[in-house]
Amino acid sequence: MSAPNPARRNERTRRAILDATLALLAETGYADLTIGAIAARAGAGRQTIYRWWGGKGAIVLDALVDAVEVTGMTLADSGDLAADLRLVLRATVAEFADPRISETTRAITIETLIDADLAGQVRDRLLRPQLDAVKDRLRAGQRAGQVRDDLNLDLAVELLFGPLYHRWLLRTGPLTERYADGLVDLAVAAMRPAH
Amino acid sequence: MSAPNPARRNERTRRAILDATLALLAETGYADLTIGAIAARAGAGRQTIYRWWGGKGAIVLDALVDAVEVTGMTLADSGDLAADLRLVLRATVAEFADPRISETTRAITIETLIDADLAGQVRDRLLRPQLDAVKDRLRAGQRAGQVRDDLNLDLAVELLFGPLYHRWLLRTGPLTERYADGLVDLAVAAMRPAH
Repeated sequence: MSAPNPARRNERTRRAILDATLALLAETGYADLTIGAIAARAGAGRQTIYRWWGGKGAIVLDALVDAVEVTGMTLADSGDLAADLRLVLRATVAEFADPRISETTRAITIETLIDADLAGQVRDRLLRPQLDAVKDRLRAGQRAGQVRDDLNLDLAVELLFGPLYHRWLLRTGPLTERYADGLVDLAVAAMRPAH
Repeated sequence: MSAPNPARRNERTRRAILDATLALLAETGYADLTIGAIAARAGAGRQTIYRWWGGKGAIVLDALVDAVEVTGMTLADSGDLAADLRLVLRATVAEFADPRISETTRAITIETLIDADLAGQVRDRLLRPQLDAVKDRLRAGQRAGQVRDDLNLDLAVELLFGPLYHRWLLRTGPLTERYADGLVDLAVAAMRPAH
């Protein structure tokens, strides 16, 4: 019998901790989430958690980065810009419909409003990869003549995600696939080359 | 000498309390804001504050509704839709550049993420009047043929405010007049009738 692989065991423990965090957030909310409860649910030691993470906010961010599979994210290029963007916005709507992800995102949003350092990490690790993936797709759209050459791409990606985030955070209306599709249609109309 | 007018005195006290709240928020932030500090700064009794407001969140909401002059808000109709919308978005950018309003809005956003009842009040008293004023202007634009007849106006107002709010809350980029103008141009392009 070979010795257990410490790297694999560490990865299993890490996964168990992140899963426990998401589950507890959905059950009890961020305010009542404790390191002790995460440790108990994950079958891990509190010391392990304290060694690997600075605090509650940092664990929750890692859980979220994991859950939305943001690392190395790219968009498909089917040649149909609106169709490709619909997939992304529908996926985001679906994530917000998942109470584990929705509650976790609310929790992390609160933390970022309080903690500027964590805010920077959320922006760079969670948000930027998603915005950059969409920007890459829009750049391909520019090359294909579907998107105005002079379009400000930072502004354009916010035109897609800003309204959705606004509606979710402030609960001003339902978040449905139909909403996602309508938003994409409007944004694509805004990006189209003048003719 | 006539007797002092109690209604006027109450209004003066109310104003002093709301002003003290905004000033303290900018100085100390929401977490350290206390009813005692507000009372001391306003020269008012703590009992008066507890009698008039349910808590910190309720005072801050009133201060904010007052500061952004949201009640009875309407948009000018100059005949130039983009120009009229630029005024609104530039004003919003200017409000977020004011640390008193920006910090207060951040504080109330945190509270709305925690307190669903307050969230409803913020939506209905602070947000809706602004969104509705813009919707009215877009409706006039529809009558004047500047805006697509089939435009979903709820979606359209979010296309204006969502990106701005997203950028402000998540600090993904600078909030300038130039940004406001670029956003209006994109949104107006999205709303234009097909031709």
